[in-house]
Amino acid sequence: MRPSGRNLDEMRDVSIETGVTKHAEGSCMIRVGDTHVLCTATIEDRVPPFIKGSGLGWVTAEYGMLPRSTTSRMRREATAGKQGGRTVEIQRLIGRSLRAGVDRVALGERQITVDCDVIQADGGTRCASITGGWVALRMAVNALMKAGDVISDPLVSPVAAVSCGMYAGQPVLDLDYAEDSEAGVDGNFILRGDGRLIEVQMSAEGATFSRSELDRLVELAEKGVGELVAAQQAALA
Amino acid sequence: MRPSGRNLDEMRDVSIETGVTKHAEGSCMIRVGDTHVLCTATIEDRVPPFIKGSGLGWVTAEYGMLPRSTTSRMRREATAGKQGGRTVEIQRLIGRSLRAGVDRVALGERQITVDCDVIQADGGTRCASITGGWVALRMAVNALMKAGDVISDPLVSPVAAVSCGMYAGQPVLDLDYAEDSEAGVDGNFILRGDGRLIEVQMSAEGATFSRSELDRLVELAEKGVGELVAAQQAALA
Amino acid sequence: MRPSGRNLDEMRDVSIETGVTKHAEGSCMIRVGDTHVLCTATIEDRVPPFIKGSGLGWVTAEYGMLPRSTTSRMRREATAGKQGGRTVEIQRLIGRSLRAGVDRVALGERQITVDCDVIQADGGTRCASITGGWVALRMAVNALMKAGDVISDPLVSPVAAVSCGMYAGQPVLDLDYAEDSEAGVDGNFILRGDGRLIEVQMSAEGATFSRSELDRLVELAEKGVGELVAAQQAALA
Amino acid sequence: MRPSGRNLDEMRDVSIETGVTKHAEGSCMIRVGDTHVLCTATIEDRVPPFIKGSGLGWVTAEYGMLPRSTTSRMRREATAGKQGGRTVEIQRLIGRSLRAGVDRVALGERQITVDCDVIQADGGTRCASITGGWVALRMAVNALMKAGDVISDPLVSPVAAVSCGMYAGQPVLDLDYAEDSEAGVDGNFILRGDGRLIEVQMSAEGATFSRSELDRLVELAEKGVGELVAAQQAALA
Amino acid sequence: MRPSGRNLDEMRDVSIETGVTKHAEGSCMIRVGDTHVLCTATIEDRVPPFIKGSGLGWVTAEYGMLPRSTTSRMRREATAGKQGGRTVEIQRLIGRSLRAGVDRVALGERQITVDCDVIQADGGTRCASITGGWVALRMAVNALMKAGDVISDPLVSPVAAVSCGMYAGQPVLDLDYAEDSEAGVDGNFILRGDGRLIEVQMSAEGATFSRSELDRLVELAEKGVGELVAAQQAALA
Amino acid sequence: MRPSGRNLDEMRDVSIETGVTKHAEGSCMIRVGDTHVLCTATIEDRVPPFIKGSGLGWVTAEYGMLPRSTTSRMRREATAGKQGGRTVEIQRLIGRSLRAGVDRVALGERQITVDCDVIQADGGTRCASITGGWVALRMAVNALMKAGDVISDPLVSPVAAVSCGMYAGQPVLDLDYAEDSEAGVDGNFILRGDGRLIEVQMSAEGATFSRSELDRLVELAEKGVGELVAAQQAALA
Repeated sequence: MRPSGRNLDEMRDVSIETGVTKHAEGSCMIRVGDTHVLCTATIEDRVPPFIKGSGLGWVTAEYGMLPRSTTSRMRREATAGKQGGRTVEIQRLIGRSLRAGVDRVALGERQITVDCDVIQADGGTRCASITGGWVALRMAVNALMKAGDVISDPLVSPVAAVSCGMYAGQPVLDLDYAEDSEAGVDGNFILRGDGRLIEVQMSAEGATFSRSELDRLVELAEKGVGELVAAQQAALA
Repeated sequence: MRPSGRNLDEMRDVSIETGVTKHAEGSCMIRVGDTHVLCTATIEDRVPPFIKGSGLGWVTAEYGMLPRSTTSRMRREATAGKQGGRTVEIQRLIGRSLRAGVDRVALGERQITVDCDVIQADGGTRCASITGGWVALRMAVNALMKAGDVISDPLVSPVAAVSCGMYAGQPVLDLDYAEDSEAGVDGNFILRGDGRLIEVQMSAEGATFSRSELDRLVELAEKGVGELVAAQQAALA
Repeated sequence: MRPSGRNLDEMRDVSIETGVTKHAEGSCMIRVGDTHVLCTATIEDRVPPFIKGSGLGWVTAEYGMLPRSTTSRMRREATAGKQGGRTVEIQRLIGRSLRAGVDRVALGERQITVDCDVIQADGGTRCASITGGWVALRMAVNALMKAGDVISDPLVSPVAAVSCGMYAGQPVLDLDYAEDSEAGVDGNFILRGDGRLIEVQMSAEGATFSRSELDRLVELAEKGVGELVAAQQAALA
Repeated sequence: MRPSGRNLDEMRDVSIETGVTKHAEGSCMIRVGDTHVLCTATIEDRVPPFIKGSGLGWVTAEYGMLPRSTTSRMRREATAGKQGGRTVEIQRLIGRSLRAGVDRVALGERQITVDCDVIQADGGTRCASITGGWVALRMAVNALMKAGDVISDPLVSPVAAVSCGMYAGQPVLDLDYAEDSEAGVDGNFILRGDGRLIEVQMSAEGATFSRSELDRLVELAEKGVGELVAAQQAALA
Repeated sequence: MRPSGRNLDEMRDVSIETGVTKHAEGSCMIRVGDTHVLCTATIEDRVPPFIKGSGLGWVTAEYGMLPRSTTSRMRREATAGKQGGRTVEIQRLIGRSLRAGVDRVALGERQITVDCDVIQADGGTRCASITGGWVALRMAVNALMKAGDVISDPLVSPVAAVSCGMYAGQPVLDLDYAEDSEAGVDGNFILRGDGRLIEVQMSAEGATFSRSELDRLVELAEKGVGELVAAQQAALA
Repeated sequence: MRPSGRNLDEMRDVSIETGVTKHAEGSCMIRVGDTHVLCTATIEDRVPPFIKGSGLGWVTAEYGMLPRSTTSRMRREATAGKQGGRTVEIQRLIGRSLRAGVDRVALGERQITVDCDVIQADGGTRCASITGGWVALRMAVNALMKAGDVISDPLVSPVAAVSCGMYAGQPVLDLDYAEDSEAGVDGNFILRGDGRLIEVQMSAEGATFSRSELDRLVELAEKGVGELVAAQQAALA
């Protein structure tokens, strides 16, 4: 029933390749099917003004799409003169999600910026950014620990994300672009490796959903995140 | 346990005053406790370029806060030179939510813009905007139907929204500012009057939540939206 | 002769309701006929850089119109990306006018920002903003004096403003929108309660005026401001 | 008593040199004492959208200051990313003032843009811009009439402007920078050659003024404009 | 003498991998040493307004750097709100250079946009962008020809670019970042495969150069471009 | 053969008038044929952050065109909301070129800003800006030396610039607008008075050039700069 022939509860192939740029403290290319996102983590000694002197650390994220990561060319946001509303919404989500797995006291007063740049898009770029972003973050934190700058591991639990939605009347896992553009209801689930929920975003455009459908979507997400966390661990091993 | 002395499943007082500006096709002042939002609906014959000639209508929203709607004065977005990320995210949510209750074929090729301007803020402004915005939208559509410009009612079902969250370890309904600023998990539920879910947004900042807590939050939202829909009907009667 | 049936030297009904928002140090809703402006005053301890350390205070103003305060919907300035020329011109006028009634030494090194947001417009919004803005300013200064933060009253004299113009060849007082859009000459007079002139702005678009007409317009303004000052005192009593 | 040694009712030396750039349809360099403004007039066949098809013409103006036209270097508005509030206010004034001397039916559906760029500033730049701008406009209109594109002269009467203010307690004519920066009350009078008033702008910063002082300021302005109109005629002869 | 141990006239290793994204009509990843640039070519039927209806085609380019392509993280231009001067200068150069190898009549009235996004930077990104951009352009044109949309080959000759400069007093070929940041004189040479010069840009920051040094730099460039053109042909084979 | 009747190696008439504004520390109006540029130099005690505390000075430049300096009116960059790419590119070139003649240690920790504003354009405005800008810089430095603020002359050698290009198949010196708009290859040469090259920019739009043509263009530039340096010295004498 799905355009890709996948089962309703089947993820696309996931690969995570680490160390893809020489400058960043952590980096990976995550590929979820044809969605490819380059994630880098940068450590800086400064923190945002609102926590200066608090001893707490900060993790933030930025998101971008290359102009031709999409079927037809998108306008470059730098030429448009600002980040669009969608971009801002996504990068706030990535930062918030990653922070939910961070002990900010243990991190100490420093900032890690996770940049997620979409090289090729085929649906689910924000989820891939979170999942890959966590790998880059993990690598940067490992470097801090190895250097002795951080003693106690500030990463409480892995963080990963997957999209779910109602496609052709059925709850399905990990929508690709062909499904996403047809789905009347779709959303993102961000979970920790320990099964705790960080964020649930289900939204309807042209349809609505029932309580029982919501329940099924949560189950699918739990399955998908389990597989993503396994892929994260394999990549880092 | 709650700062306001309310029960865990108790809404603040809700009042909706219609017809508050003489120029708009629909308008109301919604007051949910100390949160006051002025909602207006404007009918225009033009539609966005991407649906021109399709025969379909469009409903969109814009959101703003008066500089001193908050405890300390906020910078005016017009002087900042752009709408912040939070504003853009909220107004996209309002528009998307209202459209989930609209039959765009029945509306015909015209646009209704719902403006939600926060006069006084005490938590839950985006939810009040959706609930009040639907009342303004209803009034504007009524005017179109009375004038014979629209024959079949395009409003399928009322739309209302309420916030829920984990406060002091407990799921609570309709967070005010004192609760919202302390809650580690909070979110918004947008439902239709017929009980169908439009949007679920639960997000954690500094905490996470379990499957069973999510279930309880959905129940609270269903109760709250029921009361809001009743208030909408009373105001329009 | 006037569309509203008023005499040439007759003001619209004026009402000033104080204490309309719970957060601001001073606030009122001023209604001059169908022109409704929400005015708030915010006290801050900082002052602009150019007077830092001088011991002098500062009073400034910002002005905005809600998108549907007008007959047809105006574009929101925050989405346009900047305040228009008219807005900037008006808020500079409001600030300058209010400062002409302030003893900045007595105020001490603090800033009061007066926000004037037009809820409904029917001509004369900048004049209503000044008249209502002074009431909000008076309330904020009263609070400072009551708290003992300011000893000697920094408000030298009330400040109020009224528009005048040539309508159908006659000098008239307090133009509403119907008159304003037809008047070839119109302008604003800002005066203090003691009769001293603060600002005279008469400008022609499509007509000109003589010395003797200017004299008559000044007389009308003096009458109007007298009535507005009485309304201010009544609201504050 | 005046820093320059001038009498209270004495203008600075005025010179107007025409034809200073080869590209513009009309141009002059006006020098009022040490204030030098380059004015050019550009004829275009297009008009602003709001009068398209009306048969009416339009005259508009833009104003700028070279970065080092002032005592200390000003930031270039193009690098600041926008025109400041003062610039926008001034160019609206120039355009409005020039239009008050134009028969827009006779001009026909075309636009004339008058650019006023301050080469050297010493007070009174907006008045010099209006006076010099009218000369450039006159030259451009003369070219249209000579070419037969315009039959009946659209320029009803010359337009000129002068500043007046209270300096050291005395009403004085044509303030230079040394006076302007000390004056508690100052303003601009724009008049036509036939003595009709176009615009009166008196404003106080740190002082106020009486009815009788206003009367004296108007008299001074009438004297000054008389002399400026003579200088315009001489330059065009 | 060179930090990398290369000879004065020795290029870094060059590799060009084609077909790296599935959406673009042409794409490659060019690697010149540690400088990696992703180049894509997009075909669109529209052309810029200034050539509409002329029958001529257009080739343009945009350039960007990922935030962590550099040693320390750069601010994302989309958040800065505009492309910096360096970016604009570079993308104009790329577009202009590529057009010098294009027969715009043969291309027909369509536009090809070449996007060059730097994944990892180590000096010479603009030159790599031109060399890789031409490969993407060649692939897109091949697609047009294969489809029969273009009959006669519009690509007159390959285009490639290399940097040269004075390092430690010696003319050297293909500066990497370590050399570039020390060079008092450096620049870029863009040539066609047939040896014709398209652009010469030599500029000094902190040093100057003689006629004979300029002559030697041109010779080095000719050698380097020869090798780059060979790499282009190999990649496309 | 040239539209102006000049020989292939003949410059336009050059005049440099110094002291044209009373506020700037150095100023001149340079006229190269019908290209007229007003250049001013401003001394400030502050330096850019990246050299604060280094003891080194800085020379920078800004460039602008008056709206009607051109045949048809250009949009004012301040209203467009930013400097165009061409402007930024030019002002970076001017600053870089002037710095190549400056001993920044001798200048001491201060900044000189050279503003170049085009009053009338007829080709070659960036070259005229550099040549005239150096004269303004020389005057400002002379003032510093006269005041004893600078002891050793920081200006190593005069800096001047000229354009060259291929017009009708021939290398020509100092292109005017009529030539510039037809030339398939053109560029700018910036040299010091001692014959050292600072910058070579040859670029093709619609043509290419050979090694031997490049050689001839350099010779023309050397001749032109020699004459410009003589004009600089005469103006300053």
